[in-house]
Amino acid sequence: MSGNIIGERFLLMTFGESHGKCVGAVLDGCPAGLALAEADVQSELDLRKPGQSIVTTTRREEDRVEIMSGVFNGHTTGAPLMMMIRNEDKDSRSYDAIINTPRPGHADLTARSKYGGFNDYRGGGRFSGRITASFVMGGAVAKKLLKEALGIDVVAYSLEIGGVKAKNFTFEDARANRYSNEVRAPTSEAAEEMKRKIIEVRGKGNSLGGIVECVATNLPVGLGEPVFASLDSDLAKIALSIPAVKGVEFGSGFSSARSTGLENNDEYFFDRGKVSTRSNNSGGILGGLSNGMPVVYRVAFKPASSIASKQTTVDLRSGKEADLVVPGRHDPTVVPRAVPVMENVTALVLADHAIRAGMIPPVLGRND
Amino acid sequence: MSGNIIGERFLLMTFGESHGKCVGAVLDGCPAGLALAEADVQSELDLRKPGQSIVTTTRREEDRVEIMSGVFNGHTTGAPLMMMIRNEDKDSRSYDAIINTPRPGHADLTARSKYGGFNDYRGGGRFSGRITASFVMGGAVAKKLLKEALGIDVVAYSLEIGGVKAKNFTFEDARANRYSNEVRAPTSEAAEEMKRKIIEVRGKGNSLGGIVECVATNLPVGLGEPVFASLDSDLAKIALSIPAVKGVEFGSGFSSARSTGLENNDEYFFDRGKVSTRSNNSGGILGGLSNGMPVVYRVAFKPASSIASKQTTVDLRSGKEADLVVPGRHDPTVVPRAVPVMENVTALVLADHAIRAGMIPPVLGRND
Amino acid sequence: MSGNIIGERFLLMTFGESHGKCVGAVLDGCPAGLALAEADVQSELDLRKPGQSIVTTTRREEDRVEIMSGVFNGHTTGAPLMMMIRNEDKDSRSYDAIINTPRPGHADLTARSKYGGFNDYRGGGRFSGRITASFVMGGAVAKKLLKEALGIDVVAYSLEIGGVKAKNFTFEDARANRYSNEVRAPTSEAAEEMKRKIIEVRGKGNSLGGIVECVATNLPVGLGEPVFASLDSDLAKIALSIPAVKGVEFGSGFSSARSTGLENNDEYFFDRGKVSTRSNNSGGILGGLSNGMPVVYRVAFKPASSIASKQTTVDLRSGKEADLVVPGRHDPTVVPRAVPVMENVTALVLADHAIRAGMIPPVLGRND
Amino acid sequence: MSGNIIGERFLLMTFGESHGKCVGAVLDGCPAGLALAEADVQSELDLRKPGQSIVTTTRREEDRVEIMSGVFNGHTTGAPLMMMIRNEDKDSRSYDAIINTPRPGHADLTARSKYGGFNDYRGGGRFSGRITASFVMGGAVAKKLLKEALGIDVVAYSLEIGGVKAKNFTFEDARANRYSNEVRAPTSEAAEEMKRKIIEVRGKGNSLGGIVECVATNLPVGLGEPVFASLDSDLAKIALSIPAVKGVEFGSGFSSARSTGLENNDEYFFDRGKVSTRSNNSGGILGGLSNGMPVVYRVAFKPASSIASKQTTVDLRSGKEADLVVPGRHDPTVVPRAVPVMENVTALVLADHAIRAGMIPPVLGRND
Repeated sequence: MSGNIIGERFLLMTFGESHGKCVGAVLDGCPAGLALAEADVQSELDLRKPGQSIVTTTRREEDRVEIMSGVFNGHTTGAPLMMMIRNEDKDSRSYDAIINTPRPGHADLTARSKYGGFNDYRGGGRFSGRITASFVMGGAVAKKLLKEALGIDVVAYSLEIGGVKAKNFTFEDARANRYSNEVRAPTSEAAEEMKRKIIEVRGKGNSLGGIVECVATNLPVGLGEPVFASLDSDLAKIALSIPAVKGVEFGSGFSSARSTGLENNDEYFFDRGKVSTRSNNSGGILGGLSNGMPVVYRVAFKPASSIASKQTTVDLRSGKEADLVVPGRHDPTVVPRAVPVMENVTALVLADHAIRAGMIPPVLGRND
Repeated sequence: MSGNIIGERFLLMTFGESHGKCVGAVLDGCPAGLALAEADVQSELDLRKPGQSIVTTTRREEDRVEIMSGVFNGHTTGAPLMMMIRNEDKDSRSYDAIINTPRPGHADLTARSKYGGFNDYRGGGRFSGRITASFVMGGAVAKKLLKEALGIDVVAYSLEIGGVKAKNFTFEDARANRYSNEVRAPTSEAAEEMKRKIIEVRGKGNSLGGIVECVATNLPVGLGEPVFASLDSDLAKIALSIPAVKGVEFGSGFSSARSTGLENNDEYFFDRGKVSTRSNNSGGILGGLSNGMPVVYRVAFKPASSIASKQTTVDLRSGKEADLVVPGRHDPTVVPRAVPVMENVTALVLADHAIRAGMIPPVLGRND
Repeated sequence: MSGNIIGERFLLMTFGESHGKCVGAVLDGCPAGLALAEADVQSELDLRKPGQSIVTTTRREEDRVEIMSGVFNGHTTGAPLMMMIRNEDKDSRSYDAIINTPRPGHADLTARSKYGGFNDYRGGGRFSGRITASFVMGGAVAKKLLKEALGIDVVAYSLEIGGVKAKNFTFEDARANRYSNEVRAPTSEAAEEMKRKIIEVRGKGNSLGGIVECVATNLPVGLGEPVFASLDSDLAKIALSIPAVKGVEFGSGFSSARSTGLENNDEYFFDRGKVSTRSNNSGGILGGLSNGMPVVYRVAFKPASSIASKQTTVDLRSGKEADLVVPGRHDPTVVPRAVPVMENVTALVLADHAIRAGMIPPVLGRND
Repeated sequence: MSGNIIGERFLLMTFGESHGKCVGAVLDGCPAGLALAEADVQSELDLRKPGQSIVTTTRREEDRVEIMSGVFNGHTTGAPLMMMIRNEDKDSRSYDAIINTPRPGHADLTARSKYGGFNDYRGGGRFSGRITASFVMGGAVAKKLLKEALGIDVVAYSLEIGGVKAKNFTFEDARANRYSNEVRAPTSEAAEEMKRKIIEVRGKGNSLGGIVECVATNLPVGLGEPVFASLDSDLAKIALSIPAVKGVEFGSGFSSARSTGLENNDEYFFDRGKVSTRSNNSGGILGGLSNGMPVVYRVAFKPASSIASKQTTVDLRSGKEADLVVPGRHDPTVVPRAVPVMENVTALVLADHAIRAGMIPPVLGRND
């Protein structure tokens, strides 16, 4: 199967390049009968689009989505949905500079080697973070489907940027606040501090990494297919497909490695007649299956690789080292724009698994 | 596709349960012409088999592998290899106790819910760590193939157990030492300390977690298929399919989230005519593709969920809470036995990607 | 994905060779809670096993199936079922003769070329008709599942052997009679004539082809997934995976090519309140979807390639032509033994599509 | 996996509806470095486009293809190619008539049932023959790749229409003549007679079926993956995905069922030092693998279901039978327009298998 496809029953195939004609996706397996308009997808795309604030790149894209197939009379038909956005504000000329002087931290050199130099290198081409717009297209449909069919919510937020960590907040705080500040933090206090840090580091021609936390609530028990399509396996796989992601952990994650069984096991109790756990160190996943508690996981983003400062690289023509100032317009950190992406890829995986587990039927309602 | 299948071109399908007749796998896509004997697989299985030392479970299994198809005259034929081991030293009687009092940290309750109570619950059934024996079967073939066709080495070791972290060692130390101590540490000093810690905690009826680091060397550039079958995506997916894994990180991983672009970017230079990077914060993967540097990643294991101490759970018949002492024989930590498993699953992913990238041909040599 | 896998949600992976240790399959995606015993599979295997009568090969195999995983307390668990039979009455010595003188009509030469001579050539190895035993293992489970969950019946029979065509029979005749005669004909009259013809041609060291017709009744509307997983596409694909099959046609099939729209369209009418068609030229499939009428299709088998008469082939060592008398024991026609195989592969495809369409749930009943 | 995807390594995903905004496809797995322009795809689309002659529908579509991704500087990049055509001359109003009176021979009723009435029924929607334009998009790339990388040719032609069968022609005749007559016959004599027959039947408000023969030459030995991805299996699967196809046969096909082993086996000989067969009853496929002889197969098309004559159907509102005159513009036979489609789908399958067998590398030439 193609590496550009994710999912089994709710399946997304992406296409497009950063500076080509478009970026888009074909989504298949969405049940027939879901009410869907372009606005439903647009609202999610708007959350990740560039040029929104001082903390993101100045590239301005309308990112106006067109749904080209699979919707009829305002509802999904059961046929594949092709969705796309045109690339408009692309400035490709400067990228000739990087053909022979690959940018550190980017895929320029590995892609050139793999594709014999035929790859579209402009703006990173197929390896650009812009590709995540196609993840959002599929995820927007997934989010709506999950909400309407099962009442599932997915919420992500910037837990940490440049070492500034959000503290003292509840899930409800995060849900309420994350999109009312530019950095997608769960509290306005953290937002202020993160923003200050970003502006400071950008001023030095440098960039920052961070951590996004993602929480899905109201999940049924039993999402995940043993042994390789476990829920955590599939969430990790898609998270690591997002450029700049370098790590993922579930529940108590890496800190559980320093814990003991007595501390880390989540003991069961009856919570108003329903089996629940007192703690959630498992992050809502046991044996690769959702256990009914919130799924909680964190994803580490490295600092944006494109920076304004001069770096050392190689010149492939001369065989010598060379200085490089990366061309183009850059995000000082990818974390704020990654927050809606994380929500959407999480929704993609959950929708796929809910369909695999038979929890969402192939047709919603009847129209005949 | 089935959740019990991993890989595209070098594909493994697993089957079997902890206390059923057998555990095994079918491997397809191995090139014809690889010299292969049962001993090649046995040697890897022996590294993970239980009952080897004081730091593992006392369940004793011969785990004698049979290759039932796909090998003829000492070479692979291009047809699927079915491999299996019989379950022998199983003691299932005690597991009746857990039908209605699910073990904290295990999949007992989620599996029961998902499969309507028809699942084989004995010893965790399909959710047991014993399933990883089937990963090893496929991985053993992958390791041999990678070594012979491309000269690739895969080495894993216990970087940390119970908070005891190995220090001051080189890759060559790790390669040389890891299987000469019971805990699979890269140095004998770390091994001693880890072992002491394990014995201490086991004595308290408790268990420990830890971190396995895995390194693959001599990789070609360009392994990985954008965008979802990136090399890190597929390594993370398979790692999280191993029971007890709660996190994975590549290169500088979670610490890169607190770093800056200038610090974290790996600058290029010419190393005896070949492009190389001075640091390896990327963990050998850029844009989801191997970049020719060693692939380095770490996997966090939670403390073993089965412990001798009394825990609180629910009694599904009475609807009340209940005390539970987990029956069976337990590993005080899964980390030492997870080391060969990590090597083998890494090899599985690398072999699949090497074949996908056309770097290993469908036939090795000729026999006609 | 592997060529040895068929199906998406009810998925079969086969392994084994004609003269190796075993032939078997792993079946995944069978819902949990199906009552299943080895006898359920054995009864189907017995229908295709060799050595049963004068019209089949004299190779005698018990073909005793073992279910090695996936069943617990008499029910499927939702985990993969591994099933296998041992090869016993194999006589491999004579096959050395064919290494360098490939048998006309067999895959000897193409397989040797593809696998560089590493293939197991004994008895055709992986290309032997014996491989269909693994199709039957999966199909036996599919048949039981279809019957119990949806009331679907699948019936095949020898419509034609060596030019002798069965006439004047109903579906009920075929269902009642097919396994009460050695050639699997729908009427005893046809059976007698077919048998005479087979004995006559076998006596001349020759072999015969024929046509199997397969009918599935009581199907729901809507099985099939546009556009490439149409029901006829998937039935044709699996039929052509059976050795010796050279053609397949649905409903009026090739004769529809000489018909007109007015003649061939199946007009609708209400049959006791239910929409039905007066004719069934479509073979129960419209637009790749089952339409509720019986699915009817026919499969053409070439004459068995292994014959006792002398044939001309090439000697790969000398580079000259050579005479060949094919070693081993042969079926004078594969058609009678192909009848249960056709029923079983049809059931495999129908079960897969019923699950894909959400018509069979992942768990049958509850056991908790 | 989605039913809208075909192929493993050279993979096509289709989207679009007859009367929606567009019809298109995403092609993935095409090696980097293939010279490709829209004109290469357009020339194949032009061969199937409607409105070309008296023997096809009067619907006029420019069917102007746009390649939206995956090509850079005139060559494929290794990234997915999205290609599409806009729907322009659609006249959807008349289709309201068929919502409740399904057209005999079409998928109207089965689709409505499967998708709960949410399907886009206009012009057959996703079940329209217009979907085959997306098959051609992928096939055009496959044809060019096969020709340039391996020298493979694929030629199809109308062997028979309405009972008129082409006779006395060679493969070279067919290759030279097929696109110089409106009915895509291999000889001008057959073309004249077929055309006369079509005009005659159209005049009666009726339609015709026919048979397309497809031949691929210059194939390497060993295309096809046992056991389910055999070359004939995959060709049959894709052929039966084309609307109106009701049968497929390879080599001597159904007539082999009436033959004997001595007659039907293709004996080997050395043809100028190369192993060849004297006859080609196998159709170039043995054991599911190409054997180096031309692959020859035939596909039966039923008469076009849309006819101008009045037919009987059901009225789903009234529960009574009703007369129907099918709205829209119709092909009196689909066979001529199916000829390029057959060439293209054949090329798709061959390209996929050539890549799977490692016979086409992932990069053609170098650009660095």
